[in-house]
Amino acid sequence: MSKPITLYSHATGPNPWKVAMVLEELNVPYDTKFMDFADLKKDPYEQLCVNGRVPAIEDPNTGINIWESGAIVEYLAETYDTKHELSFEKGPEKYQVKQWLHFQMSGQGPYYGQCAWFNKFHPERLAAPTERYDEQVKRVLYVLNKALTGKKYLVGEKCTIADISFVPWNEMLGFILGDKLASWDVEKNYPAYHAWHQSLLARPAVKKTWEAKQKVASGGGQ
Amino acid sequence: MSKPITLYSHATGPNPWKVAMVLEELNVPYDTKFMDFADLKKDPYEQLCVNGRVPAIEDPNTGINIWESGAIVEYLAETYDTKHELSFEKGPEKYQVKQWLHFQMSGQGPYYGQCAWFNKFHPERLAAPTERYDEQVKRVLYVLNKALTGKKYLVGEKCTIADISFVPWNEMLGFILGDKLASWDVEKNYPAYHAWHQSLLARPAVKKTWEAKQKVASGGGQ
Repeated sequence: MSKPITLYSHATGPNPWKVAMVLEELNVPYDTKFMDFADLKKDPYEQLCVNGRVPAIEDPNTGINIWESGAIVEYLAETYDTKHELSFEKGPEKYQVKQWLHFQMSGQGPYYGQCAWFNKFHPERLAAPTERYDEQVKRVLYVLNKALTGKKYLVGEKCTIADISFVPWNEMLGFILGDKLASWDVEKNYPAYHAWHQSLLARPAVKKTWEAKQKVASGGGQ
Repeated sequence: MSKPITLYSHATGPNPWKVAMVLEELNVPYDTKFMDFADLKKDPYEQLCVNGRVPAIEDPNTGINIWESGAIVEYLAETYDTKHELSFEKGPEKYQVKQWLHFQMSGQGPYYGQCAWFNKFHPERLAAPTERYDEQVKRVLYVLNKALTGKKYLVGEKCTIADISFVPWNEMLGFILGDKLASWDVEKNYPAYHAWHQSLLARPAVKKTWEAKQKVASGGGQ
């Protein structure tokens, strides 16, 4: 039995929940520390993560402390997924998982984040950047839908850390876009994407994690 | 002697040049195919890269074809850096390299890209998004400078794929920001960042690659 990993998280931000989903999938024990945004960009947290963002982890079993959700889920798979239930040991599939994980990190997360900023948080609703990032989100849905047509998962015949990594931002589209999302008719226009996302949400580890997020985000504690 | 890898690239975009730098560093033979943007988002290129972006590689030695620059440089290091000149085999350093590579992919590239869009390419100069992305670039410079203070490289005592990966976007700041960059006084305000970036530019493989990019971008052929 390994000692629990410490996961530095936040109630509403999507990226720490990606790590929590992978920890739950792999049955790795962990304790969550929920951070206030105000405490991230100063010591002692900056000593752990100079980038001042969550997630970060401390693993007492290996002494390894790292940040960046993409790096963390790769670390967890390489360290704890010894049966390769969520990963591939070698071959093209190993690198296809990396490819999709990097696409999630660089192509989904930042653009969904900008979409959220200009649709929800910026003081004014500015037409040009809002349209720009709405189109970027649609482009990601198009790419995922095209890649998933005729397939259940992004790589090979099983769910991997790459699939899981897309769940939190995709599931937040309703919050980000509100009524606009209905007008996009995701189920009709991106059917393979839609079926895949629903299948991921139905996984017990993902479902448990997302329910915990909703409870914490609504102020109900963990 | 391995057969040459095919690198799908573009004259002006920064990300394929990151891959070229790593190939040069590792002395791996490769041929570059320069693509027009108009040909990326349709077949046959979408058959290779459903995301319709460069870079992508085809490696005839392993039969592995992948896209996303972060995944490609990890693949190249794991396949061809058998002496671990640009990577670490194990331990905390292995995952710290992943951490910085994912930060480059998710934290530097997309934000520098938005900074370029609103400073250079969007039809109008819009104050709010331009200021937003200028501030994001400064934040990346702050994080890198803080991490590099008292150190020569991001991880351990050697240059890795993580360091190299930051070069193209950082070197493009002059093009993106023009005179504005001088007002930021990078050398004074981010001295550890500045020294690191200059040391990376002076590496023969990096220098050769960037000179080739400048030649191609100016229409002079490869």
